[in-house]
Amino acid sequence: MRAITIAEPGGPEQLAWTEVPDPVVAAGEVLIQVTATAVNRADTLQRMGFYQVPPGASPYLGLECSGKIVEVGAGVSGFVPGDEVVALLTGGGYAELVAVPAGQVAPLPNGMAALDAAGLMETLSTVWSNVFMLAGLTAGQTLLVHGGSSGIGTTAIQLAHEFGARVIVTAGSAAKLQACRDLGADVAVNYREEDFVERVREVTDGRGADVILDNMGAAYLDPNVEALAPHGRLMIIGLQGGVKGEVNLNNLLRKWGTISATTVRARSSEEKAQIVAAARDAVWPLIEQGRFRVIVDRVLPVDQAAEAHRVIEDSGHIGKVVLDVAAVRGS
Amino acid sequence: MRAITIAEPGGPEQLAWTEVPDPVVAAGEVLIQVTATAVNRADTLQRMGFYQVPPGASPYLGLECSGKIVEVGAGVSGFVPGDEVVALLTGGGYAELVAVPAGQVAPLPNGMAALDAAGLMETLSTVWSNVFMLAGLTAGQTLLVHGGSSGIGTTAIQLAHEFGARVIVTAGSAAKLQACRDLGADVAVNYREEDFVERVREVTDGRGADVILDNMGAAYLDPNVEALAPHGRLMIIGLQGGVKGEVNLNNLLRKWGTISATTVRARSSEEKAQIVAAARDAVWPLIEQGRFRVIVDRVLPVDQAAEAHRVIEDSGHIGKVVLDVAAVRGS
Repeated sequence: MRAITIAEPGGPEQLAWTEVPDPVVAAGEVLIQVTATAVNRADTLQRMGFYQVPPGASPYLGLECSGKIVEVGAGVSGFVPGDEVVALLTGGGYAELVAVPAGQVAPLPNGMAALDAAGLMETLSTVWSNVFMLAGLTAGQTLLVHGGSSGIGTTAIQLAHEFGARVIVTAGSAAKLQACRDLGADVAVNYREEDFVERVREVTDGRGADVILDNMGAAYLDPNVEALAPHGRLMIIGLQGGVKGEVNLNNLLRKWGTISATTVRARSSEEKAQIVAAARDAVWPLIEQGRFRVIVDRVLPVDQAAEAHRVIEDSGHIGKVVLDVAAVRGS
Repeated sequence: MRAITIAEPGGPEQLAWTEVPDPVVAAGEVLIQVTATAVNRADTLQRMGFYQVPPGASPYLGLECSGKIVEVGAGVSGFVPGDEVVALLTGGGYAELVAVPAGQVAPLPNGMAALDAAGLMETLSTVWSNVFMLAGLTAGQTLLVHGGSSGIGTTAIQLAHEFGARVIVTAGSAAKLQACRDLGADVAVNYREEDFVERVREVTDGRGADVILDNMGAAYLDPNVEALAPHGRLMIIGLQGGVKGEVNLNNLLRKWGTISATTVRARSSEEKAQIVAAARDAVWPLIEQGRFRVIVDRVLPVDQAAEAHRVIEDSGHIGKVVLDVAAVRGS
C-alpha cells in the first residue's frame, strides 16, 4: 500500500506519499481500506518529532478515518468485509489500509458522507470523553471552549448546545466568531480584543464556567482557573500555549476546582472502545436527525498532506481539513 | 458564654478566653454545649488574618467539636437535648456553645471518648471527601500522603490501610515516620533526606501513586504531578508551601492526571451534610470495632489555645491537639 511517510522530523515538506508494507491484522482487529482521513494538531507535532508515538501504534500519521472493512481478524464479531465504518485510530490513517482494534470502529452514521465522516472520530472522542464523560457537563451549565472554530471547537459547540448547556467560545477573527455563533455558541469572545476572563464573568453574573475545554495549556492556565465556576472543571487537551504554566492554587482551592489533562490517543484500546461506544450511543441519533455534523474546512487529496498541514499551522481554517485517500487510490 | 476571641490578627498571644453573646439557634440547627474542640491549620491562618471566613460563619475559631445537644431548632428531627454528638463546624468550636446545621452533626461513636472525638470530624470529613468520595481510592491502589503524622495524615493512613490501599507517607522526623508505620503506612519517606518522587517510583515499579493527598500546594505541585500514576488524582487540601506554583502540563497530559483543590469549610451546608453522612456510614462501624481512632498528641484546656497554636505551628506534634472546653466551664 501507500502511506504518507516523514522523511525526517521537520516541516510539511517532509511528508511524502510512499510505497510501504501493508499492515497485518492481529486478533481482535479489522483491516480498513481508508476512504479518507483528517488532520489533527497532534499530526503536525508528530511530523516535527515532538509527539511520542504510543508503544505498538502505527508509525504513520492519522488518528481517524472513514472507510470499508476488507478483512476481519480472529475473534472479531459485529463486522464483516464490506461494512462502511469510521474509526478512532492510534495512528495510521494517512494510508490506503489501516489495522485497528474492532472496539475503536463504528458503523458509518446514516446520512453522513464518508468524506465528512473522516473527520468525525478524533474530535468527537476527545469532546465526548472530556466534556461529557469526565467533566460531566449537564443541561443548564456553562461550557467555555477555547479555539471555538477548530475541529474540536465546532464539535464541542454543537454537542453542548444540543444537550442544553450554555456555550461561550474564544476565537481570533470575526469570521471564526460568526461560524461559532452559527453552530450554537451563545457568546463568542475575540481573544485578540477582549479579556476572556472578564467576559466570562460578565455573562455568567460573576459565576464563571462550569467546564472549560482548553487547547492552550500553560498560557491560559492561570486565567482559566480564574474563569472557573465553583466546582468547575478545566479540561486541558492541548498545549499550544506552552508546557510549563504557573497557577494560583488558592484560586483553585477557593472554588473546589479541578484541572485535568488528557489525550485520547495514549489511552488503552479498551478505554478507546468505551469512549467510542458512549459517543456512538449519544451522537449517532443526533447525526441521523441532522442535528450534528462535521464542519469541513476543505478536502485535499492525501498526497497533498503537506499543504493540509500548512493550512492547519496557519490557523485560518474553520473545522476539519480532510484528506481524501480514495481520490488517489490506484493512481 | 465564653469563647476564644482574636484581639487583632497576629500571633498566638492574640487569643483570649472572653465573655461573648450566646449564639442563637436558627431553624434547621442544633445548639451544642461544647465538650472539646481541636486545632486545625486553618485556625492558625484565620488567627493571622489570612483565612477568609465563609459568609454566615461564626466569627470564632474551631472547625469541629464534641459535645451535648442543649437546644433543637425548628424543623430538626433525629436529635433531642441531651444527645452526645460530634459536629463538623464552619467555625465557632472554640466556645462554650455553638449552633450548627443538624446535617453536620452525628452521634458520638460508641466507644470513643468525647475528648478524642473532638478531633474527629474535620480531618475525617477532609480525608473522606477527598480521598474516597472525589478521588475514588480503591483497594489495591496506592495513596501518597504528605504530612503523614498530622491529624489529616494519621486519619488518611488508617482509613486507606483499612480499605486495602497501599500507603506511602512523607514526614520530617524518625519519630513521625515510626508513628505513621505503626498506623499502617507501608512506606515512610523522610522528605528531609530523600526525594519522595524517586522513592514513590521505586516502590511502585515506576508506576506512581494513584491518589496524592497534599498539604503543601505550590512547593510540591510539580513533583506531585511527577509522582502520579496514570489516571492519578492529586488532591490539594492545604497551601503550606505557597500559593503560586509552576507545573509541567505535559507530565499531567501524558498520564491523564487530575489536580483538584478543595476545602471542606467553604462547602455549602448541604454538601457538608452529605460528607458527614457518608463518613459516618463508612467509618462509625470501624470505630466501634476498634479499627479506627483519633490520634491525639495532647489535650490542653481551651483557655490555653495560644499554647495549642504554638504546638501546631512548631510542627512537632503527631495527630491532633485537642482543646478541652468542659475543663474550664463554670470556672
